[in-house]
Amino acid sequence: MQTKKSIGKKILSANEECAIKNSRILSERKKLCLNMISSPGSGKTTILHRTISELKGKIRIGVIEGDIQTDLDAEKIRKTGAPAIQINTNGACHLSAAQVSRALKQLPLDDLDLIFIENVGNLVCPSAFELGETGKVAVLSVAEGDDKPAKYPAIFARAKALLINKIDMLQTGGRVDFDIERVKRDVCKLNKTIEIFPISAKTGEGMRNWYDWLLKSTKDILS
Amino acid sequence: MQTKKSIGKKILSANEECAIKNSRILSERKKLCLNMISSPGSGKTTILHRTISELKGKIRIGVIEGDIQTDLDAEKIRKTGAPAIQINTNGACHLSAAQVSRALKQLPLDDLDLIFIENVGNLVCPSAFELGETGKVAVLSVAEGDDKPAKYPAIFARAKALLINKIDMLQTGGRVDFDIERVKRDVCKLNKTIEIFPISAKTGEGMRNWYDWLLKSTKDILS
Repeated sequence: MQTKKSIGKKILSANEECAIKNSRILSERKKLCLNMISSPGSGKTTILHRTISELKGKIRIGVIEGDIQTDLDAEKIRKTGAPAIQINTNGACHLSAAQVSRALKQLPLDDLDLIFIENVGNLVCPSAFELGETGKVAVLSVAEGDDKPAKYPAIFARAKALLINKIDMLQTGGRVDFDIERVKRDVCKLNKTIEIFPISAKTGEGMRNWYDWLLKSTKDILS
Repeated sequence: MQTKKSIGKKILSANEECAIKNSRILSERKKLCLNMISSPGSGKTTILHRTISELKGKIRIGVIEGDIQTDLDAEKIRKTGAPAIQINTNGACHLSAAQVSRALKQLPLDDLDLIFIENVGNLVCPSAFELGETGKVAVLSVAEGDDKPAKYPAIFARAKALLINKIDMLQTGGRVDFDIERVKRDVCKLNKTIEIFPISAKTGEGMRNWYDWLLKSTKDILS
């Protein structure tokens, strides 16, 4: 009988094979692809909405939206004019490389510089499933607490960038206790090269540094 | 070769067998056991800390703390004087019934009326794994957004109670957009019998109704 561990390995390997194919397609066509991972409600969709709107005319962005059910997020993204493909996982807690492969075929890749994958809201499982992305972007809202990198290290160890979102909440009379310096310290212990951007997708604070990083990263892919 | 679906079924069944044993032990000894499920940072530990402190002398509470790593949460709970057993899942995204079975043996069950299980922070996976609990309690913080029951229906469909936490944030000059009535409507479509408590574990607002429900539920188990 197979052990739980060996079963897990087999499923992961099938996924990884497909991820390698996605990665090849994306790098041959020189597209930046970022896999956004966070808990539900950290603000991924709002970040994407604002990013797409403000970078219009500078980077052409498409989105793959992963949700357990509903297409609320893809609808929100389409309002910006960007193409968005909704994937419903029907209960599964993460996107698979095969799902992303099908979505990539539906996107007008020739007309895009950057593809965001908004993964299912879950800080744990999606970090273990490669999708063929160029890099992972973790999102943590200050409302979730500053102990999260210590308690859920996997995604913080693997991400190229971390967006600390909803920093506008830190200014509301001290109702949110969140020590950004503690998060930076804990994350840097796990990951020496990660870029950390404290932002508010609601007010726009700090978003300029994130945009500059995206502009630079799309240029690096082309060169 | 086994399909992914049949593998999933087998793992779930082994877990369910163990959950049934836990359930039998708990009901024979007339203990209420509540499995708390939410995203990371919704406030589960703070809710437990306040609940244990304020119900001291009325209900004797023990806690099983599930975390991927660290024992930060069990340490916080022990400061109230309540017994707390830490389980580290080492990467796994949910608690299993076998882990809970071992933890139950370490708790002084004879001296307790109510056992809380604080599951790993994850709104998706833990709802699919029965632990033998009397019931599930979902926690949703207003900072996570009011679209979560529509997007992550499983836990809201299965829970006996829903705590809508951090309602103090709704009073901070409209920085958090969260429609409690929308959540109530969406949850009631999934679950007709669920009890919904809007609370702030930080300020104490709304906690009285939650305590009354706990007092009634522990009495019901004894009768």
